[in-house]
Amino acid sequence: EEVAKLLDLKAKLGDDGPSKKFVLKCPKGTRDYNPQQMSIREGVFNTIISCFKRHGAETIDTPVFELKEILTGKYGEDSKLIYDLQDQGGELLSLRYDLTVPFARYLAMNKITTIKRYHIAKVYRRDNPAMTRGRFREFYQCDFDIAGQFDAMLPDAECVKIVAEILTQLDIGEFKIRVNHRKLLDGMFSACGVPDDKFRSICSAVDKLDKTFWEDVRAEMVDEKGLSPEAADRIGHFVKFSGGISTLEELLKDEGLSKSKLAVEGLEELKLLLTYCDLYKISDKVVFDLSLARGLDYYTGVIYEACLQGYANKPVSASSGGSGEEEESVSVGSVAGGGRYDGLVGMFDAKGKKVPCVGVSIGIERIFAIMEQRAMASNTKIRTTDTEVYVVSAQKHLVEHRLKLCQELWDADIKTEQSYKKNPKALDQFQYCETNGIPIAVILGQSEIENNCVTMRNTNTRAERKVSREDLIEEIRKELISIKSS
Amino acid sequence: EEVAKLLDLKAKLGDDGPSKKFVLKCPKGTRDYNPQQMSIREGVFNTIISCFKRHGAETIDTPVFELKEILTGKYGEDSKLIYDLQDQGGELLSLRYDLTVPFARYLAMNKITTIKRYHIAKVYRRDNPAMTRGRFREFYQCDFDIAGQFDAMLPDAECVKIVAEILTQLDIGEFKIRVNHRKLLDGMFSACGVPDDKFRSICSAVDKLDKTFWEDVRAEMVDEKGLSPEAADRIGHFVKFSGGISTLEELLKDEGLSKSKLAVEGLEELKLLLTYCDLYKISDKVVFDLSLARGLDYYTGVIYEACLQGYANKPVSASSGGSGEEEESVSVGSVAGGGRYDGLVGMFDAKGKKVPCVGVSIGIERIFAIMEQRAMASNTKIRTTDTEVYVVSAQKHLVEHRLKLCQELWDADIKTEQSYKKNPKALDQFQYCETNGIPIAVILGQSEIENNCVTMRNTNTRAERKVSREDLIEEIRKELISIKSS
Repeated sequence: EEVAKLLDLKAKLGDDGPSKKFVLKCPKGTRDYNPQQMSIREGVFNTIISCFKRHGAETIDTPVFELKEILTGKYGEDSKLIYDLQDQGGELLSLRYDLTVPFARYLAMNKITTIKRYHIAKVYRRDNPAMTRGRFREFYQCDFDIAGQFDAMLPDAECVKIVAEILTQLDIGEFKIRVNHRKLLDGMFSACGVPDDKFRSICSAVDKLDKTFWEDVRAEMVDEKGLSPEAADRIGHFVKFSGGISTLEELLKDEGLSKSKLAVEGLEELKLLLTYCDLYKISDKVVFDLSLARGLDYYTGVIYEACLQGYANKPVSASSGGSGEEEESVSVGSVAGGGRYDGLVGMFDAKGKKVPCVGVSIGIERIFAIMEQRAMASNTKIRTTDTEVYVVSAQKHLVEHRLKLCQELWDADIKTEQSYKKNPKALDQFQYCETNGIPIAVILGQSEIENNCVTMRNTNTRAERKVSREDLIEEIRKELISIKSS
Repeated sequence: EEVAKLLDLKAKLGDDGPSKKFVLKCPKGTRDYNPQQMSIREGVFNTIISCFKRHGAETIDTPVFELKEILTGKYGEDSKLIYDLQDQGGELLSLRYDLTVPFARYLAMNKITTIKRYHIAKVYRRDNPAMTRGRFREFYQCDFDIAGQFDAMLPDAECVKIVAEILTQLDIGEFKIRVNHRKLLDGMFSACGVPDDKFRSICSAVDKLDKTFWEDVRAEMVDEKGLSPEAADRIGHFVKFSGGISTLEELLKDEGLSKSKLAVEGLEELKLLLTYCDLYKISDKVVFDLSLARGLDYYTGVIYEACLQGYANKPVSASSGGSGEEEESVSVGSVAGGGRYDGLVGMFDAKGKKVPCVGVSIGIERIFAIMEQRAMASNTKIRTTDTEVYVVSAQKHLVEHRLKLCQELWDADIKTEQSYKKNPKALDQFQYCETNGIPIAVILGQSEIENNCVTMRNTNTRAERKVSREDLIEEIRKELISIKSS
């Protein structure tokens, strides 16, 4: 407040010296969206929301912060990235880290056992930002989840189908959806001789395979996490498996895995999932990959992750000799992910009552980064307004006539702008139409007013014609239709 | 994390005892939106956004938090209500308190001097919540602002017009937009003998006139803020003035006011504003009111506030004998407000360069509370999905056929659902259509599959007819059009 008073005083004294006391910026890892960027973002959202609605989803919203204890113990090693609010007296609060935990809290709180909902909102992670690669501390998630007691793989396959539909429609290049199963991973760890209490931490290590080399992951398992080198090497053998139904059948015959009930369950479910994906005509996009782990603790069944090709997700092994180019091609990678989490809602229920859930989360920022780059490269102008008509004064002293005309057009739901100057120059007004892509100028001059008409001008062709005031609304609508169809 | 591990352990041990360790709730002053509420909210947003776009606005977005120092010294006595984030190492951050300060920061940071933009987003205030009256700690603001060096009252009048259009379209009852001018207030304070350094604090007291009686406001001025009783009584005389252009002309002749350059400037601008409002055909909605002050420090010119009638904003004087009813009728009140703030952007500029701005903020929560109440009272069922077709299995073992059919419909952009059970009961599936208002059921049975057709059923009329698979998409589209037009 002191600063403000001083600034006020300065202003009153007519002192124009520097008044800035701090760096003008957005907080680290965040950014503004300008109107062009908003235009691209709205296009992406429309595609995503249309798809969610095509699959019959409702939508909900939850607060941006939750009681801190709601988030505690849900994110494993990533919990350190949660933003806390300052204790200003009252409840201890944290910004949401994802939309899945608030969704589970919502279900438990309202005793909802069946719902299909989407939720598009910002989430917050105190991660190391890499903004050119689309990694932010504040970012959107577009989540679709199906909760309820259903038959195996029917909701799960629909989630995978949704990812495929959205990425196809967004037309941002080739992609692959890798799928795996937490039960298969656990069964595999057990078959490899990983002690039960190390499952989650070894799983976290496997999760890093899409960013680092096997040699480094192995070192983490053995040196940091105390796994025996033999067990690590057995894991190293399995994580190479990827493919389709035939790969799953091969693994079902594996001596070690076939003894694990969990592994067999996981493999059978994945076979059913791939069968359903085939019926949904997306099997060319879906690949089973035993190296996919996903970091979050709460997954219990199928897990999946979509990566854009040409933005390689897998690093080239060190021995194959990496060039500078690979670095660049890792720049985007994963754009969607999700899986089944049958235990999460039960963690919030007084009686531990479970609600089976499966869902998918689309990460908009990386997709957006690609589309923005493409828009810049193509050099096409993006309109940021929908204005249809600009009311032009051809002469001075017509401001009241302009206001009346604007009122008529607005009340007829025609998107209309005018100059905020009392006596604007004609050239400036036409220039504004061209710069902003406003298709029609409606011109008022003394002769028009005397004859109760206007001059209607097509900004593009510059063709002009007189239109009586009575017919104006109708003529504008006709002109707009003819412009849109041409 | 400890809790999670214990819960994990419990789950493994098959212990189904109570696992809840805390109260399941939203943070104080916040709430979830369920699908019905989201449906109402989306309707309100659509009306508001359409209006903003009709007036040619672009849109931007800013982060939910700002550097703490950006917000410091902008909100006067309300600064204590700002939410701070915990210092977790790094920058000191606060949740945004409104959208106006982030907008000014955005303009200064990007050196933008002319823009017309809207911004719809949540803001945060650690206020005392009154949730049944639509007062929350997390709430939406829908802001429209015009920045740039323009001629007097042209942008200002358009902001008032926009409020009138939106409140008319939302159809939530009669409303009035009260207007006043900060320069007139300052000139009036000066004419009443208020010392210069008390202008802002006396203005804050006047701002409370819409919630409390003059007697209490006078006591605050005299007892708390040390104003002379004579000055307070002179203010008491002026704040009773309200009306139209004739009232402004009466005040222009006032001996005290006419000597103040500021007061005359304010009165002349208000006259011009009301003239423009007349041209915009909203003068029946707009009333000059010298008791309107608005709390925020940053206003420098015209200010306005829209109140719903029948949700009285003004308390009845104590002497007129208040009944219990009045309490209830104050429950909603102000739904939109704004004004001119020509100095705010300059506070962020290194050279103090000013960008004149005027804007309006629509408060969605109170409007939403009214519409939700109305929806509940009318007992009309609100659809929360857009699903057009439900694919029904008439028999067992048809899941693969169903999946194939859904794939065809989704790929043709038809909004389609199906059961997630492998062998759902026919009755359950028809029931789902009726409960959820899905207009068409497409039924698959053995005979349909053998004849390469489906049975198409109108949920409402229950009329059924056979349609060949080849014509299905086209027939569904026709049926949907005929249902919509009936």
